[in-house]
Amino acid sequence: MQTKFSDKVKHLEASAIREIFKILAKPGIISFAGGAPDPTLFPKKELSEIAADVLLNQGEIALQYGVTEGYAPLRQWVKDRLTRQGILNGQDETIIVSGGQQGIDLASKSLLNPGDGVVCEEPSFIGGLNSFRSNNAEIYGVPVQEDGLDTDKLENLLKEHSNIKVLYTIATFQNPSGITMSLQKRKKLLELAERYDFIIFEDNPYGDLRFAGEDVPTIKSMDHDGRVVYLGSFSKILSPGLRLGFVSCDPALMERMIICKQVQDVHTNVLSQMIAYEFVTRCDIDAHIANLRQVYGKKCRLMMECMDRYFPACVKHTCPQGGLFLFCTMPKQYDSKKVMEKALEKGVAFVPGATTMIDASASYSTFRMNYSTASEEEIKIGIQTLGEVLKEIVGE
Amino acid sequence: MQTKFSDKVKHLEASAIREIFKILAKPGIISFAGGAPDPTLFPKKELSEIAADVLLNQGEIALQYGVTEGYAPLRQWVKDRLTRQGILNGQDETIIVSGGQQGIDLASKSLLNPGDGVVCEEPSFIGGLNSFRSNNAEIYGVPVQEDGLDTDKLENLLKEHSNIKVLYTIATFQNPSGITMSLQKRKKLLELAERYDFIIFEDNPYGDLRFAGEDVPTIKSMDHDGRVVYLGSFSKILSPGLRLGFVSCDPALMERMIICKQVQDVHTNVLSQMIAYEFVTRCDIDAHIANLRQVYGKKCRLMMECMDRYFPACVKHTCPQGGLFLFCTMPKQYDSKKVMEKALEKGVAFVPGATTMIDASASYSTFRMNYSTASEEEIKIGIQTLGEVLKEIVGE
Repeated sequence: MQTKFSDKVKHLEASAIREIFKILAKPGIISFAGGAPDPTLFPKKELSEIAADVLLNQGEIALQYGVTEGYAPLRQWVKDRLTRQGILNGQDETIIVSGGQQGIDLASKSLLNPGDGVVCEEPSFIGGLNSFRSNNAEIYGVPVQEDGLDTDKLENLLKEHSNIKVLYTIATFQNPSGITMSLQKRKKLLELAERYDFIIFEDNPYGDLRFAGEDVPTIKSMDHDGRVVYLGSFSKILSPGLRLGFVSCDPALMERMIICKQVQDVHTNVLSQMIAYEFVTRCDIDAHIANLRQVYGKKCRLMMECMDRYFPACVKHTCPQGGLFLFCTMPKQYDSKKVMEKALEKGVAFVPGATTMIDASASYSTFRMNYSTASEEEIKIGIQTLGEVLKEIVGE
Repeated sequence: MQTKFSDKVKHLEASAIREIFKILAKPGIISFAGGAPDPTLFPKKELSEIAADVLLNQGEIALQYGVTEGYAPLRQWVKDRLTRQGILNGQDETIIVSGGQQGIDLASKSLLNPGDGVVCEEPSFIGGLNSFRSNNAEIYGVPVQEDGLDTDKLENLLKEHSNIKVLYTIATFQNPSGITMSLQKRKKLLELAERYDFIIFEDNPYGDLRFAGEDVPTIKSMDHDGRVVYLGSFSKILSPGLRLGFVSCDPALMERMIICKQVQDVHTNVLSQMIAYEFVTRCDIDAHIANLRQVYGKKCRLMMECMDRYFPACVKHTCPQGGLFLFCTMPKQYDSKKVMEKALEKGVAFVPGATTMIDASASYSTFRMNYSTASEEEIKIGIQTLGEVLKEIVGE
């Protein structure tokens, strides 16, 4: 059988994060490895009542085939919300997809030929990297600085390589770094996109989860010539299990993405789309998001306090203003994969930096910490334990 | 933007069937064009109660990220059922996918390089054809005879072309023909697969829907060296809107498919999987299927009776023993696309044969009729109307 595999998949490796998830199934592990919302905050009661009602009274729609573009009322709601937020200006089409990952993958498939260049932030989101890898793109990395990706290095890359077609960025509360790109750099990025004629994938699953600082306009909101593919998700503000994301972009590109989606899964789960629509219309989604912000902000501050108290002083962390992650850096000589092995023995998990890098086989001194899933008690115990492991390895 | 599209998607066209669906949204149209279950038979009340219970009492699982392979209890249930049905013999892996279409597409992506040969039945399922097209496969057609695909023509093809890697078949109640492949031909097919070393995709979404005749063993049940990728679906026995399918195949191939699925949509909707699992364990799925069979059998017989009464004698139809479709053939000189235009004017829709053929641009005298979605009253009126249109075009 192996001799028959396509060239596309021969070299792909299972997502390290998902492999870690399997380890995490063991009871007693405190996990900072996931990227999942706090499950105690799911609006279970409301969704239970809505699902029962939708199935009983609109079951003939909820259970039947739907259209590839998505459930029309939900599409319209997303479009209206993005317009109200100043993100869309009326030129773009919006569709519902089966989670944010599918949005990245459909856009990649529609645009990338083998050998086309994609610029990614380093570190970046493994799901994005894997989508570009599976389309046999050539991936270039640009480091993330405190105010977002290094636009000078990006410009050098663009001068050197004429094959760059796409740049992928999580500009707000980046996964994994937690960093937000400054307005100045966003403007510079758009300017470079126009000058060097590339498309920007702006992936914004965390944008609604700000718990400190001031909102920065999305890149999409400043896009005047349909150069930005805007990717959003219900995973972080409602539920990842429902697999609902959305994409807003140029209508011609959207048409190609819809055709790709027909082949991939025909259409997004109708029941989920109807549940989400009923939730956003019957309940107060903004109050729900405000609560998430408040809880995640508290957990993030707690995690940073614990790190400052228990981690060796030479291990640094970012200070996110929103989202789900903060990113730690040890002195260069230490490999976070090795730290992780020891941490797992003590019952604590995180994501080693290697899985967030283009060359995942190299050694990196960084790691990603998620603060949304664990309880406050687990954060206290887990960070203290991880601090002990780090001190054993890197010293005080 | 158009200049940036990948070669993969440039040439793809929107599924004609889905485009037809848009026309069908007009009120008053009697549609035999879809492939959807009878929406009045959805077990809405049971699913409503189950969904409410799952979200309230297991919401932290149903709404959270899940594993790519699928919800473990549902996977096990599918595996046990297929084993009980004699389809699996213990060597294969089974995963849950986001509808049967995703199963075809993941298997295609994992196996097909550009230029690899795929043999399809002619006519065949457009979703399969589009998946092979989007992987830039070379598609060869083999005609479907009264007892299934023409194995002699297949053997000639295999002798002529050394690039054939995959054969795609809906052996039971084929879409669109409604024809079931004989046991003898299934054995011959496996023998050819071994001799010429190709993989069989056995797509079996309709197998449970037999309303006449005797069961024929699946090709998978006779597969001893992991050559058959078995594709199943909950769309026709429970609900298409929930987007649930499954694949059973060789574990090494399955591993590649799982990696592809991680990139495509991370995992299948957890809520849907849990609802389906609770339904098959709490309710009597076999009684539900028995009811579907009875209703579809009755509707199929009614449609054939109406055709025999109202269609010109020179328009022939197949006589399915199960599934959702029957297939009509006019004398060669008539083009079913033109018939469809006239039929739509009179408020009746079907799928022209061209959309089921490898060369969809040519002219064909065939068309597909679905009998599961329309009511009995609609079948009577719709077939009478279509008979009048046909008589105008092809004469008495």
